[in-house]
Amino acid sequence: MTDTKVYLLDGGTLVIDGFHAFWNRGPAGELRFPCYAVLIEHKDGRYIFDTGYDHAHVMRVLPFEKPLQTPEQTIPGALAKIGLKPTDINYVINSHYHFDHCGGNKHLSKACTVCHAKELEASTKHQPFEHLGYSDMTFAPQLAKQAGKALPPDEPALDMYTPKFETITGDQEIAKGLWLLETPGHTAGHYSLMVELKNRRPMLFTADACYSQKNMDMNCISSFHLDPTASLKSMHRLKALAEKHNAELFYSHDPDSFPNYVKAPGYYS
Amino acid sequence: MTDTKVYLLDGGTLVIDGFHAFWNRGPAGELRFPCYAVLIEHKDGRYIFDTGYDHAHVMRVLPFEKPLQTPEQTIPGALAKIGLKPTDINYVINSHYHFDHCGGNKHLSKACTVCHAKELEASTKHQPFEHLGYSDMTFAPQLAKQAGKALPPDEPALDMYTPKFETITGDQEIAKGLWLLETPGHTAGHYSLMVELKNRRPMLFTADACYSQKNMDMNCISSFHLDPTASLKSMHRLKALAEKHNAELFYSHDPDSFPNYVKAPGYYS
Repeated sequence: MTDTKVYLLDGGTLVIDGFHAFWNRGPAGELRFPCYAVLIEHKDGRYIFDTGYDHAHVMRVLPFEKPLQTPEQTIPGALAKIGLKPTDINYVINSHYHFDHCGGNKHLSKACTVCHAKELEASTKHQPFEHLGYSDMTFAPQLAKQAGKALPPDEPALDMYTPKFETITGDQEIAKGLWLLETPGHTAGHYSLMVELKNRRPMLFTADACYSQKNMDMNCISSFHLDPTASLKSMHRLKALAEKHNAELFYSHDPDSFPNYVKAPGYYS
Repeated sequence: MTDTKVYLLDGGTLVIDGFHAFWNRGPAGELRFPCYAVLIEHKDGRYIFDTGYDHAHVMRVLPFEKPLQTPEQTIPGALAKIGLKPTDINYVINSHYHFDHCGGNKHLSKACTVCHAKELEASTKHQPFEHLGYSDMTFAPQLAKQAGKALPPDEPALDMYTPKFETITGDQEIAKGLWLLETPGHTAGHYSLMVELKNRRPMLFTADACYSQKNMDMNCISSFHLDPTASLKSMHRLKALAEKHNAELFYSHDPDSFPNYVKAPGYYS
């Protein structure tokens, strides 16, 4: 048995407005922030938690988010840096199905996909104001077709991609020391992830239940949300979980914290 | 019996960002919009629907909204233009208790105050992100004191002001041809108002369930909301009500439509 290792796979950056990052508080103005995937090498297999955005998708659908992503910051490129191929991944876990968290799923063609049941439903059945968030359906081509949602015309490989989903609800220890914790509000079925490690404090990946330390400090959620009351409650839950488990919070889109995180090929264990 | 007359009392302007007016859509940038009160001369008495903002309050608590308000745009000044005093008003109806809809209540010291039961509760018991919205508690000094909420230190007259509240729920015809219609989402207990008149189509005052024609056309609510799903549903309800009753929609904060509205001393009847 190998001890669990956690790699952060840098996925490039996007731009949103300060009024998006800090709902109704701002300040206004362009804010560039990081996106990343989390690779967990576990005795039961290789898990990836979220897969960042697809550059071509953002340029096509949300070019105003000004994506900056090198080949090394794609899922295949980032895995190659640590000697892995996309087909080496056994499980994809998606915190939620916004485009900047599932854009690399399509590369992980051998993986079983794990997510909250409500989130998979929301990916094709959601509020009008969630349209852009759920705009990249390449993680589930069959669902997209059934729902009449657009797929990119120039990716014939998607026709071959038929991922298997395992939907769950509630808090779940999906493998020894890997905890999915319900944090809804940003979306209908959002999950955060806690990873217990041998040599250090647990890592608690907030995903979009809290973009950054500054959001936590300001007690301010992001402007992208389905239910702000639930979203704020989930942020408070993360704070309480971190205290209870002496876990370290890793934020999803934090331009201040991200430079201090260990990125692949380095890892936490 | 006199026919019902409706006066729009110009209350000055405020500034918000385009990302506040059009949630997550924008475009970004300062947007100056109007605020106004609606005076209804009815055979049962004089009603005012919403009372605009208090300039001193905005300068003290939200100066970044850059209020522009002349003496004629205060409630006393606007009433004087049509030969009325604040004490001539019998009823105040508040769509909701955000500062820019209740700032003039304190002048209407003889009026009975009508609002949704949930809204009065929310004015002192609300989500943290609603704090600035509910920052002007001068409409209910006693409630403010009970809840430990701040009142301006320089208005001793408030000590004498003890308004009587009549809270209601559901859709209600509060007087012949005056309909309060539930449109929650922007806040917990939001009401819109429809007024039936003898010589023209009914007037349907959206209040903040829809800031402007552009919000309706874009199917986009404002960024200030408690529940965006309910808010969007309420906007759709207003559209359906307007069609059903052949009513004309009057938006709360529409810089494009407001110049075309008849303002006091002119009136609709």
